[in-house]
Amino acid sequence: MERIDPWGSIDIKDYGKLSKEFGIKPFKEILFRIKKPSLYMRRNIIYGHKDFWIILDAINKKQKFAMLTGLMPSGKFHLGHKVIADQIIYYQRLGAQCYITVADIESYLTRNIPLDQAYKLAINEYLLNYIALGLKPKNVHFYFQSNGSKEYMNLSKYVSKKINFNEVKAIYGDISPGKLISALTQVADILYPQLKENKGPKPVIVPVGFDQLPHINFTRDIALRMKKEYNFILPSATFNKFMPSLQGTIKMSTSAPESYIALTDDEKTVRNKIIKYAFSGGRATIKEHREKGGNPDIDVSYQYLTFLEESDAKLKKIYYDYKDGKLLTSELKEILINKLNSFLKKHQQNREKAKKVLHKYILKD
Amino acid sequence: MERIDPWGSIDIKDYGKLSKEFGIKPFKEILFRIKKPSLYMRRNIIYGHKDFWIILDAINKKQKFAMLTGLMPSGKFHLGHKVIADQIIYYQRLGAQCYITVADIESYLTRNIPLDQAYKLAINEYLLNYIALGLKPKNVHFYFQSNGSKEYMNLSKYVSKKINFNEVKAIYGDISPGKLISALTQVADILYPQLKENKGPKPVIVPVGFDQLPHINFTRDIALRMKKEYNFILPSATFNKFMPSLQGTIKMSTSAPESYIALTDDEKTVRNKIIKYAFSGGRATIKEHREKGGNPDIDVSYQYLTFLEESDAKLKKIYYDYKDGKLLTSELKEILINKLNSFLKKHQQNREKAKKVLHKYILKD
Repeated sequence: MERIDPWGSIDIKDYGKLSKEFGIKPFKEILFRIKKPSLYMRRNIIYGHKDFWIILDAINKKQKFAMLTGLMPSGKFHLGHKVIADQIIYYQRLGAQCYITVADIESYLTRNIPLDQAYKLAINEYLLNYIALGLKPKNVHFYFQSNGSKEYMNLSKYVSKKINFNEVKAIYGDISPGKLISALTQVADILYPQLKENKGPKPVIVPVGFDQLPHINFTRDIALRMKKEYNFILPSATFNKFMPSLQGTIKMSTSAPESYIALTDDEKTVRNKIIKYAFSGGRATIKEHREKGGNPDIDVSYQYLTFLEESDAKLKKIYYDYKDGKLLTSELKEILINKLNSFLKKHQQNREKAKKVLHKYILKD
Repeated sequence: MERIDPWGSIDIKDYGKLSKEFGIKPFKEILFRIKKPSLYMRRNIIYGHKDFWIILDAINKKQKFAMLTGLMPSGKFHLGHKVIADQIIYYQRLGAQCYITVADIESYLTRNIPLDQAYKLAINEYLLNYIALGLKPKNVHFYFQSNGSKEYMNLSKYVSKKINFNEVKAIYGDISPGKLISALTQVADILYPQLKENKGPKPVIVPVGFDQLPHINFTRDIALRMKKEYNFILPSATFNKFMPSLQGTIKMSTSAPESYIALTDDEKTVRNKIIKYAFSGGRATIKEHREKGGNPDIDVSYQYLTFLEESDAKLKKIYYDYKDGKLLTSELKEILINKLNSFLKKHQQNREKAKKVLHKYILKD
């Protein structure tokens, strides 16, 4: 079995095959039971889950549940990050308590980002964009790993009692002490909503990309072993496909600006990036494209629209028009540019407004 | 080179040889520079040190310095623990700030002692006895690992950034994740007095038994590597011989009541334990003892007197009287019993008084 490195690079050829290998259940199997599935659920962008039925039950029975996500404050907030942000907001609208942890301990230990810099990035890049995307202050618990409660900080140590190095190695490979501490801190993050101080235990959904699977598995193992002391409910997770980089590789990379569209990019930058970089599934010449059609399945512009275009009918039309050669690459890119720029214009206005309500989201000591 | 397990049992045949092997400097070399050496210093019970000259300079120049000790709340407070307590008080009288950490995270992770039980033991067994032995409230910083400051808790994570598993293995062998977390927490304890919140950096002396050497070395290595971020002064340490068990093995064991004299033992218990268990260096018969003399160097009663009898002259007389056969084992034991019981009578009265001033020593949140 392949090992996944949550701190390294990954490449995924086939989400379905990987899911099977790693015990992730297809999301499709549970989709029909969801009253208001999100765009990502409908489109199989959220393609897998672990014990999502626990969350589904809580939603349907109108019981309390929580959403937990961690953010790694390492650079600009881009479209790839939006995929998680949209899920946070989706669950908030369904009544979830939203726990958002800034992984500043982890970004210091594994990426050497100073804590004061992490603080600024978390607020200016992440929180502001979450708010602009629709996050409301109610039931939001936004905190920093370096500034958590005592019980939370102790929990990140107690979990070490429940594991041995053989299984750490089986899950993470040969990791450094810094990465081990990061992993234990993440386990505490995922279990934190269930502590007494947060009126747990309760169902918790953690929406992640596939690269976070080791943390999910590790936490679920530990949660089971802490049943006696804490009576934790096994945390649930969903797995989403990554928004590919402009070049068509598996995901956008914060350290490579030409790989992503940031939510603060201006019109011209967006246009330039899409035209210059967006990997095309079109043919070499217009003539050939008209005759044989393009390949939307490898076309980055089309892939982005699957994340961004709300109308299934519109998306379907674009897909077949492109495949049939009616739609040229330049035209497809224009659709995406317009879609993105009209979204970003509104978003950036919202972002300015968000600055005025920031204080409603930041926990006091 | 032998490896020392701070969580396991150790046996020491020759303190001098071991010191050389592990880079501990003989305390004798520095003794003449100390204005008021303690009984333990004079008697070579404190036999070794690392960078004690830093402390000596601070004392002589009347500069601020700190003493740090950790206590493992695992059972009754016995004569072995008194050896550390006396050193705390010695440094307090010299003007040291006294940092006393209750290693409740460690006792939970490595000995499965629940935190509430650790709390009670720390107060009733340790703190009360410290006070009865002479600890004053001024400049005492008594805290629990599970209830430390945020900066302290984070420091125990940050240190993981400065190490790799090869050196952890070289120092501690194959330890469990729980023991690694305990070790990192101890590193944070030793460096804690030097944090900004404690107006550090400053010289810190850590009086320990030989079994704690791995933590001392580990911490000193890390302190050097954190120079840039924290400008730590290299912590100093002294190493004391253990008070042997009644049976004459290397140290008293909290889990074996017949191995120790507790500071709460009553007169009769003390008498019974000494007569029944204290390993004797005497001869098989009185006649033989009178002729050939006893061996004080292996006699537990005599060893105890080296820790307890303040008068060098008296101790010397006992040594030679025993060696010359003038003093019988029963008489030597009687000297010890009287010494101990008169000390314990007074101590137990002081302990009752101490209960009334406990609140002066316990930090508020």
